[in-house]
Amino acid sequence: MVIGGDGYCGWATALHLSNKGYEVAIVDNLVRRLFDHQLGLDSLTPIASIQNRIRRWKSLTGKTIQLYVGDICDFEFLSEAFKSFEPDSVVHFGEQRSAPYSMIDRSRAVFTQHNNVIGTLNVLFAIKEFSEECHLVKLGTMGEYGTPNIDIEEGFITITHNGRTDTLPYPKQASSFYHLSKVHDSHNIAFTCKAWGIRATDLNQGVVYGVRTDETAMHGELSNRFDYDGIFGTALNRFCVQAAVGHPLTVYGKGGQTRGYLDIRDTVQCVELAIVNPAKPGEFRVFNQFTEQFSVNELAKLVMAAGAKLGLEVQTKSVPNPRVEAEEHYYNAKHTKLMELGLEPHLLLDSLLDSLLNFAVQYKDRVDTAQIMPNVSWKKMSTKPKTVSV
Amino acid sequence: MVIGGDGYCGWATALHLSNKGYEVAIVDNLVRRLFDHQLGLDSLTPIASIQNRIRRWKSLTGKTIQLYVGDICDFEFLSEAFKSFEPDSVVHFGEQRSAPYSMIDRSRAVFTQHNNVIGTLNVLFAIKEFSEECHLVKLGTMGEYGTPNIDIEEGFITITHNGRTDTLPYPKQASSFYHLSKVHDSHNIAFTCKAWGIRATDLNQGVVYGVRTDETAMHGELSNRFDYDGIFGTALNRFCVQAAVGHPLTVYGKGGQTRGYLDIRDTVQCVELAIVNPAKPGEFRVFNQFTEQFSVNELAKLVMAAGAKLGLEVQTKSVPNPRVEAEEHYYNAKHTKLMELGLEPHLLLDSLLDSLLNFAVQYKDRVDTAQIMPNVSWKKMSTKPKTVSV
Repeated sequence: MVIGGDGYCGWATALHLSNKGYEVAIVDNLVRRLFDHQLGLDSLTPIASIQNRIRRWKSLTGKTIQLYVGDICDFEFLSEAFKSFEPDSVVHFGEQRSAPYSMIDRSRAVFTQHNNVIGTLNVLFAIKEFSEECHLVKLGTMGEYGTPNIDIEEGFITITHNGRTDTLPYPKQASSFYHLSKVHDSHNIAFTCKAWGIRATDLNQGVVYGVRTDETAMHGELSNRFDYDGIFGTALNRFCVQAAVGHPLTVYGKGGQTRGYLDIRDTVQCVELAIVNPAKPGEFRVFNQFTEQFSVNELAKLVMAAGAKLGLEVQTKSVPNPRVEAEEHYYNAKHTKLMELGLEPHLLLDSLLDSLLNFAVQYKDRVDTAQIMPNVSWKKMSTKPKTVSV
Repeated sequence: MVIGGDGYCGWATALHLSNKGYEVAIVDNLVRRLFDHQLGLDSLTPIASIQNRIRRWKSLTGKTIQLYVGDICDFEFLSEAFKSFEPDSVVHFGEQRSAPYSMIDRSRAVFTQHNNVIGTLNVLFAIKEFSEECHLVKLGTMGEYGTPNIDIEEGFITITHNGRTDTLPYPKQASSFYHLSKVHDSHNIAFTCKAWGIRATDLNQGVVYGVRTDETAMHGELSNRFDYDGIFGTALNRFCVQAAVGHPLTVYGKGGQTRGYLDIRDTVQCVELAIVNPAKPGEFRVFNQFTEQFSVNELAKLVMAAGAKLGLEVQTKSVPNPRVEAEEHYYNAKHTKLMELGLEPHLLLDSLLDSLLNFAVQYKDRVDTAQIMPNVSWKKMSTKPKTVSV
């Protein structure tokens, strides 16, 4: 059961698992499409309706993906989906996943935390009630850790203090209401593993880039979404679009912000590795899911160099940082557990040309440059509902 | 502004601050009274309506306490209260505060996390919007830390790891949906201090005992509530009632569970100390608010000895532990910051006879022994709504 299977990571994962022979159901309320309508945004790549996506997949491969359309915050709906599909694994992408979205105004902050926390609580209760052996594979974020001045471990850290030692959850320092919602989820899930014997894997994912996977490349109607806007677009995807249309790469602040990154083809691999190697009953397991670390300035340089190979003239421009975050800091995050399970990374230097810049160039006529610049400020966030007019 | 000022700690605090000359407003939706009705529970001490409480206080002291009745999850209501009262400090007790209540069923778990997390988010937004200089004094709980095998510090711990050092939020291991909601609040508040410059003090309170304060003792209509039931009654208060009515003291499991405790007269002192010595703009400050540590077995022994002085024959009985928690563990929690600010503790040995057992004996005819035993199981918690019939 792929919750949030109509979204960016969810759709790629659902197809990948179906292709690998898993019986797949998508659970989604499709609200991500509504956000685009409300904010006047659109995917760079045209995307088909979820119904057409699933029909096309069936006609191409003969494989059926079941579809449950509804809101996991509605426990009656979720219960029926669980009773009907009887999942062995639940992959939970079904959350509002944009930090800037959660910082637009009070109502979006509240929506994000309510939606993510209560939805995940419902998933935990559904597993306890209907399928106690089911393995929860939950998407977290590397952003839960913040940027501590010590190495980031995978979920837990062994601390020696005043002569005694214990292994404890790694301290969390999230920096948006969205990232905080994932911190809350992680604590809630850890508790239910201990209290109820739930088996769970928390995948603390880095920033995902790319759009093409083996499955989405099979047909235009299977194409994945590609966000480049100031709300849902992540740094690297946005840079590629900027390079394609001749817009300067917008570096927020000093550009020393360093994070973990991974190709979307590795996202789907990682989820499958977690499913194939499930957590034990009662185990709360955390994997840091990324393959390489880059600063924003390093990304900008890589995109400039790759752009030059395609004959694009790429400029860089520093803009005021809309976020509250350290712009120069230590960053060294461990990410060995998924490697040990067999992850074979796609590295950025190889992907830049074959899965990113080429897409951006192919669809550059669809680019709406008005969407690119950041327009959500962490500090100036207001309680007043922000109605975005184009 | 005392949010939750009609509750156990809130009422005592509101009166104490009013008595000390502060201009006080109570903000409360009175839902704690509804919980009693719904679950068939009642305070050992008879309590007056909030309106009569406030009238009596005015007639005795000439001091006015303003009353705003409404739900802080309703931002329109909270905004009006802020604009009308213009608080310099907000003391936030306005949360569902029972671990067993949060573990009754799915709907109460969801209610607890929604109510506490969204209510606190709204308070943060109200401060940002209407009173940026306002100091938030938020009640947390020692239960956020769990029972780690190392010393518990006050909110933050300095960690040296792989040759580097940082001071980070102390790792959290909460053990009920209620305790988890406080962990979520702490993370949310810390973020807004950093992003918006909010000034906040998080009081991680231990288990509160006692009922009498200088102010509530002035008149029967000012009397505070005293909970001894399996849902809202805390260990020590329940033991005293059991001793008074000849019911064996019910020790959950092995009884080695150790926690921090404090007299309610120290709760009101601590809150005042936090207000008098406010956090700086942007500072997120954590104080561990308790005065002594006891295991459940130690409490039982103290109550037996104090009971003997009053001629009561007190027995102890081990009952299966309804919670999931370590029953024998290391526990050493720091609590020096409030002492440094001038806290003068009331110690348990002195309070047992003059503020606890005497009350229990005085009101023993009101005891409903059917309320005493635990009837909420952490492990057997269900998604099905639990309707409690008497």
